[in-house]
Amino acid sequence: MGPGPSDVSPRVLGALGRPTIGHLDPLFIDLMDDVKRLLQFAFKTSNPLTIPISAPGSAGMEAAFVNLVRPGDTVIVCQNGVFGGRMKENVERCGGVPVMVQDRWGDPVDPGKVETALKQHPEASILAFVHSETSTGVRSDAETLCKLAKNHGALVIMDTVTTLGGIDLRVDEWGADAVYSGSQKCLSCVPGIAPITFSSDAVERIKARDTKVQSWFLDMQLVMGYWGGDAKRAYHHTAPVNAMYALHEALLILEEEGLEQSFARHKKNHDALVSGLDGLGLSMAVSEEWRLPQLNAVSIPDGVDDAAVRARLLKDFNLEIGAGLGELAGKQWRIGLMGHASSPVNVERCLTALAAVLGR
Amino acid sequence: MGPGPSDVSPRVLGALGRPTIGHLDPLFIDLMDDVKRLLQFAFKTSNPLTIPISAPGSAGMEAAFVNLVRPGDTVIVCQNGVFGGRMKENVERCGGVPVMVQDRWGDPVDPGKVETALKQHPEASILAFVHSETSTGVRSDAETLCKLAKNHGALVIMDTVTTLGGIDLRVDEWGADAVYSGSQKCLSCVPGIAPITFSSDAVERIKARDTKVQSWFLDMQLVMGYWGGDAKRAYHHTAPVNAMYALHEALLILEEEGLEQSFARHKKNHDALVSGLDGLGLSMAVSEEWRLPQLNAVSIPDGVDDAAVRARLLKDFNLEIGAGLGELAGKQWRIGLMGHASSPVNVERCLTALAAVLGR
Repeated sequence: MGPGPSDVSPRVLGALGRPTIGHLDPLFIDLMDDVKRLLQFAFKTSNPLTIPISAPGSAGMEAAFVNLVRPGDTVIVCQNGVFGGRMKENVERCGGVPVMVQDRWGDPVDPGKVETALKQHPEASILAFVHSETSTGVRSDAETLCKLAKNHGALVIMDTVTTLGGIDLRVDEWGADAVYSGSQKCLSCVPGIAPITFSSDAVERIKARDTKVQSWFLDMQLVMGYWGGDAKRAYHHTAPVNAMYALHEALLILEEEGLEQSFARHKKNHDALVSGLDGLGLSMAVSEEWRLPQLNAVSIPDGVDDAAVRARLLKDFNLEIGAGLGELAGKQWRIGLMGHASSPVNVERCLTALAAVLGR
Repeated sequence: MGPGPSDVSPRVLGALGRPTIGHLDPLFIDLMDDVKRLLQFAFKTSNPLTIPISAPGSAGMEAAFVNLVRPGDTVIVCQNGVFGGRMKENVERCGGVPVMVQDRWGDPVDPGKVETALKQHPEASILAFVHSETSTGVRSDAETLCKLAKNHGALVIMDTVTTLGGIDLRVDEWGADAVYSGSQKCLSCVPGIAPITFSSDAVERIKARDTKVQSWFLDMQLVMGYWGGDAKRAYHHTAPVNAMYALHEALLILEEEGLEQSFARHKKNHDALVSGLDGLGLSMAVSEEWRLPQLNAVSIPDGVDDAAVRARLLKDFNLEIGAGLGELAGKQWRIGLMGHASSPVNVERCLTALAAVLGR
């Protein structure tokens, strides 16, 4: 019950362990097509370029930046946690110029500040922000931020690593242009795959580049040849076949449950956890409106030894919860209720274990 | 029996499907340490920076180049197949200057040409070549090529994607500096992981860089913080936990068999295949001295329809063999006898199926 990887269901593990077939086998090509369809469903998009990157969420982030950011491009980057900082790193390594919009870790991105930054930087062609900050448990108002970018004529890069499958996400309706996620949060698939989707505006920008994408492995012009709509699949790299079985199964489970039903389940179990934590005298670190139901940031009470509590939870209760990241280390715990692991049983289990370890 | 992914043993698939635990869980850290030890064994190296990259072999290649090639660096790149061309792409995308040494596809890299290129380019600080060309089934003389580079004072980047576990590889003895491989060839692990090892000279060069590595995900200065020898593991990205279980199991199997025993088995099954193919009137595309026992390039006889034969093998015999890549498309088949799939049963199966389909 940390910030991910979340518990993987036996059904997904079963799919993962199926015999490996070739990455160009007709049966595997069929599975790829279905993975693409299911990702479009999960992202609420009709973008043809919607694929799983063959690497973890961090590589998904890098895929968005290296394809869209050209040397010299100004990019407005919102930071209200660890992952906004990583976006800045990505912009710099692409030769872009990041303009930072800073908010307190634990608050959402402030649309007012973003609007000001866009006005001050008419040359900015991309706005980048994190929808669900895994490091703080905070949601930001993606719809409003996308609208600001559109009004400015900028593309949007959005991190939805912890969003996908857990809370509402509307790629097409909001108008986000490069949106990436991870397999191991609310999809409850094994770690190592990064779903990503690019809008037609994003694809146009990629095709119009006059410099090569700096990463061969993540170059969408090449990846499109393998995952694209063409009848003939061009070999690019060997896809992680078994991980794709698992992703396919995890997405089928999501489709069977239904997106809105999954969001409602995440919310219900979150409410139960918050109420139970309150009963233990523990308070949430994020204001109610912006809390992520799938990732619960809890303030560590004064005098409580962070590392000792987590070690005892792991040793005595076989339960992992997350430590604070970056400047929140030692100040917060992060309790995940993601995907398959968002269940009443897990809420009870966590509350019982915390009560015992904290002596409350 | 294509050029990979090779058949994965039930034991490795079983390990793959074990419950996912956290990537910072003490049990997982122990497993990582053992994976590192086993990779050192497989590479015949004592390099401390020997790790599995959380992405396919192509990302392993990119990891070697982005960390070692700085803008403006001259790199001698040997090309005798598809993957030398991919190395050139990598050098260019790092802002380096590739100097190409070309050999016929199907021949090994010519050390004489390499020596000439090194002499003509005293500024070259890296020599890059493919030890086992997956696209042609050709081995090159790695020991001699490494020696030439050392005499010149250049570092060596070596592709051993199809080598590792199948034929002899001596990273330390030969003096190679950045050597990468893949999980899905002779290790018979699922695709998606790239073992890599860096010499102390390579690490020194990385630490001395005055420009940042262009890839955040593959930046060894950051990855070292997670995989390095430090007691405290810094979070970098979420490791593909289940794929690491599988890699660990595949490496244990290699250790149990023994490296030399594995090489001998690959050689024996290769000899049986060659002899059987000869009986069918089929000839090998590579001269005997430079043939890879794990990847057998076979000349397609005149008048035989490449795609139709492969389609029938797959449909009627559930058997995949590889097509030719690049300029060898339609001219050669590539029959893999890699790792778990290098067995007398598979040799027989392939020969029987080919005899039936070709009507010989």
